Parts: sequence; structure tokens; C-alpha cells
Amino acid sequence: MYRPEIKVLDCTIRDGGLANDSYFKLDTVRAVYRACCEARMDYVELGYRNSRELLSPDEYGPWRFCDEEDLRRAVDGIPNPGTRISIMQDAHKARAEDLLPKAQSVVDMIRVATYVKDIDKAIMLENAAREKGYETTINIMSISVESDWELDPALEQLAKQTRTTACYVVDSFGSLYSEQVDYFVAKYQRLLPGCTVGVHFHNNQQLAFANTIQGIIRGANFVDSTIYGLGRAAGNCPTELLLGFLKNPKFNLRPILDCIAGAILPLQKEIEWGYLVPHMITGMLNQHPRAAMAVLKSPERNNFRAFYERMLELAE
Amino acid sequence: MYRPEIKVLDCTIRDGGLANDSYFKLDTVRAVYRACCEARMDYVELGYRNSRELLSPDEYGPWRFCDEEDLRRAVDGIPNPGTRISIMQDAHKARAEDLLPKAQSVVDMIRVATYVKDIDKAIMLENAAREKGYETTINIMSISVESDWELDPALEQLAKQTRTTACYVVDSFGSLYSEQVDYFVAKYQRLLPGCTVGVHFHNNQQLAFANTIQGIIRGANFVDSTIYGLGRAAGNCPTELLLGFLKNPKFNLRPILDCIAGAILPLQKEIEWGYLVPHMITGMLNQHPRAAMAVLKSPERNNFRAFYERMLELAE
Repeated sequence: MYRPEIKVLDCTIRDGGLANDSYFKLDTVRAVYRACCEARMDYVELGYRNSRELLSPDEYGPWRFCDEEDLRRAVDGIPNPGTRISIMQDAHKARAEDLLPKAQSVVDMIRVATYVKDIDKAIMLENAAREKGYETTINIMSISVESDWELDPALEQLAKQTRTTACYVVDSFGSLYSEQVDYFVAKYQRLLPGCTVGVHFHNNQQLAFANTIQGIIRGANFVDSTIYGLGRAAGNCPTELLLGFLKNPKFNLRPILDCIAGAILPLQKEIEWGYLVPHMITGMLNQHPRAAMAVLKSPERNNFRAFYERMLELAE
Repeated sequence: MYRPEIKVLDCTIRDGGLANDSYFKLDTVRAVYRACCEARMDYVELGYRNSRELLSPDEYGPWRFCDEEDLRRAVDGIPNPGTRISIMQDAHKARAEDLLPKAQSVVDMIRVATYVKDIDKAIMLENAAREKGYETTINIMSISVESDWELDPALEQLAKQTRTTACYVVDSFGSLYSEQVDYFVAKYQRLLPGCTVGVHFHNNQQLAFANTIQGIIRGANFVDSTIYGLGRAAGNCPTELLLGFLKNPKFNLRPILDCIAGAILPLQKEIEWGYLVPHMITGMLNQHPRAAMAVLKSPERNNFRAFYERMLELAE
């Protein structure tokens, strides 16, 4: 039996943008948006609303900034029976004044991504977004390298100073095993009473879908996925697998399958994502994916042993 | 802390043989054997010992029969500090008389693969192998489509009529979720007292590694894996991921990494395995992988919606 409280957020364009500096063609964004609407996803995230003062528009495509006119071009004319639109702000790369009042925007929800060290910036952004009329979440990145003595007070601060809908466990490095998922979900439930727990996992160890299931078993009710797992490095929990597991009769898998064939597989010519040995190594050793992404673009991409030795040194 | 009771069996050549009719070059088999010995795997499985009377040698390569002289060519001159050699017999495709006495063979263990309906044949093969001096396991295939009222008496029969070292939960269709792993492992523990539980999972839903971890958490101590997941259809639990999780200091990941680069990646030109949408669909719908393997060789390989509709009809 399905659990109606579970909300699925497809962040194909947002997380996938970390693999191509958010240079998606408009047609691709529209295809993903259309598929998510037709599949009756709860949310679809179309990119970042980061600041041009803090990130150069010469280096990033439009979906890193998500100007209101770009968003309107993405959704224009596509029937939407109830999929809410989300964008993400990075706590250290975004400004509160870059948000229009909700009534003037197609956006429904602002997700604030943050490291624990930036929690005060994240709270400011969350408060500003909520005051402008948006639903909000806070997504704590790189959770696998945060210390309890820093994370716990940050969660307590969020409980006191925000009214965020959900707070996410984000395994940016793809490093967690199921027992660690249990640990973090239980911690959030304890320190953030009344706040929904969200989970966002990466697939470096082929555990993104499995850890999402584990989070759901433990009570997480906001879950992220991307179509065919498109995302940075090893990618994410695949939307198509998640819908099959959830068994909520409102979901329709067919438009997601069509989108994979029509819009996502062609991207494999430009973007490399999925399970590859360097990604496995950084996940296993709890390291940032940037070293693996770099080695995969080098002539040494298949010298796995040398990469492993180098990462072992970093992990010491 | 690691659990020393856990035994890892690498079945790259045996399960991979289901993807290429066991036509591996001798060099590939030697490379996998060498990597498993150097990595200090507990077991390495080099193929099937099926009967030439029941399977045509015109249709299958040498590793479907594993003649003693072929096995000796595979292992000759490669230092082995303690990795035991296994081969598999299919209950419905093998004969007891095809086994030499253990003293005349390089093989240490016979694994008998069976459907529940062939349990009597499996017991005969197991008894014969044990009488000839081999260690044995019994691997119950396609567990996701067996009924309790047939499976339970078969397990009770195994408990009475064999002295097998381990009995495996084999998810041939890649269909199980973690809660079903719990269910089957608990059932085996209850009905096969004193017998080690083994687990063998397929990756149709990207859950082979995760389900292996789940089996381990619930007490399974024989676990199967293949290098880079090589195996039929979506493939298996990757050896490299499993060694990273287990943390037994005796294991050495480096030779496995070298083997991926040197011997496994080149096979991608001849064999297609891994996460592909048709494999996902058969796994999700609890169907045999043969339909997905066929469609992937057809011009319709990316017509996912049509394949999904066809499989839905089969699953009704």
C-alpha cells in the first residue's frame, strides 16, 4: 500500500546542471517539465536561482539563474495538472532580493542548499522566501563529512528560526550506507520536530535508489530523483525506479520512459554520468566528486589504481 | 568492524557466461582468476559443469562445461594464497557422473542451481558432489516467483536430505526490494537451521549491492558478486563495491581495479550489461530478463513505452 504523504521532487534539470554548467537547451527543459507534469510528479525543479554577482553568467547557462522569463518560456503552453515548480538557491551563492514576490512568479517552492557552516545565510534566505509567499525547504549538503557537534546545533537553530516545510539529508558524495541513512533520518526527526525529513542521494556506490527506499522506510516523506539518474558525477536516484517502488496510483511511468528515450539518452553525447570506477572510489572514500570528474576528462581516466592511491592519500 | 564469517564468491565468469554463452577467451578467465586470488577473495567461480548430453557444445563455449583440462589451463601458474575454486551445476542440465572425485580436480566447491520444481534433482547432485569430496551449496533461482507453499517444503527437504554448506536466495529477475530480502533470509534461517544463508542479486533496479548489504545485515554469510557487475542482463552486485563495504583487512581492492581496466572494460565491445531501461522494466514487473535481452538486440530497443505495455500484459 502506498503512503500518500510521500512527495517526489524531480530535480533532473537542477542537479543535471551540475554536470553541464546548466547549459540545457530550452527544448530539453520543456521535455523534462512536460514529462513530470504528465507523470503527475509532486514537484519539478528547473534549476538554481543563484546571483549573477556571485557567479559569472559567462561561465554558466540560464538554468543556473532561472530568470523569470526563462522559466516562463520553459513552462509556457504545457498543461500542468498540479506539479509544483521549485528552484534552488545556494546559501553562499544567492541573494534574497533575487526573488520576486510569489504572486509574480511561476515558482511555488524555494529550496535553500547549504553547508552547515553557512546555516545563518540559509536561514536568511529561507525566511525571505517564506515572507515572499513561497513554500521552502532547507537542504544540508555533504552531510557525510559534517560533525555531529556542528550539525546538531545547526538543526536546532533551523527548528527555532525557520518554518521550512522539509529539511533534507543530502549525501553529496554518494558515500552513505543504509545504516547511516537510518542515523541521519532519526537525528533530523529528533531535532526538527514537526518538520518533514527529505532525502537526496547520489549514486557513486549504486545506492541512491536503495538509500531513498531506506529513508522512506524510516519516515522521510520528501524524496528527490532525476530522470534516468541524470546528475553530477554518478548521478542520482532514478525517477523511473522510484515511481515503480512507490506504487502511488496517481503516478504515470510512461511519460518518464518517453522522456528518457527522447530527451535524456541524447544528452549522453555531451554529458557523462552514471556508475564509473572513479566515482565509485570517491564515494567509497567519502571524498568530493570533483577529483573523479577531473580524472575522467584526462588521459588517465582508466588508471583506476593510481586514482585510488591518490584518493587514499587525500582520505588520510 | 568486519564480520569474519562472511565469505565472498566472485562469479564473474560463471554469471557473465549467461551474457555470452560462456565464450570467454582463456586470457579473460585467467585475468579474473588472478585478480580474485590477489584480492584474496574467498571463492572464485569459473563456470558451469553442465552436461554435453543436455546442452549442445556447438552453442556454448568451454566455460559452460568446465572440463578439468580447461580449468587447469585457467589456473596454471597463477599463485593462489587460498581462494577456493567453485563451479556450478544446473539441476536440470547436469549429471552427477560428470564430476571427478575431488582428489583429481582443481575444484573445491560445487554449487547446484535449481528451481523449486527440480529440488529432487538438486538434492541428488548435492549428495553426489559431497560424496565425491566437494563442499556444496544449493542456489534456489527465481525466488521472486516461487510460492511459499512450494518453497517452504523444498527448504524443509533440503534441511533433511542434504548437508550443504550454504543455501542461497537467488533473485534472478532483479525484482526484490530490501523488505523482501529480509523476508527470504528470515525464512531460510527458520527452515534451514545450521545452514549458512547465501545471497545472489541482480541489478535490474540498481539494488544488487544494496540488497546484498541488507542480506548481510540480516545474517547472510555467503555473498556473490562479479567484477564491475558483469553478468546477465543488468548484471550483479559489483565485487569492487562489496569489498569496500566489507572492510575485511584481508581483501585488496587494487587487483580488482586493474582487472576492470584490463580485462572487463574491453568486454563492453562484445557484451552489453548494466542498468538499461528494458532491464529495469522486467525487474520492476518481476519478469524473466529474456524479453529485455531480446528487445535490446532489436530495432525497438529504445521504444520503452511499447516494451512496458507488452510486459504489463505479460504480468497480468
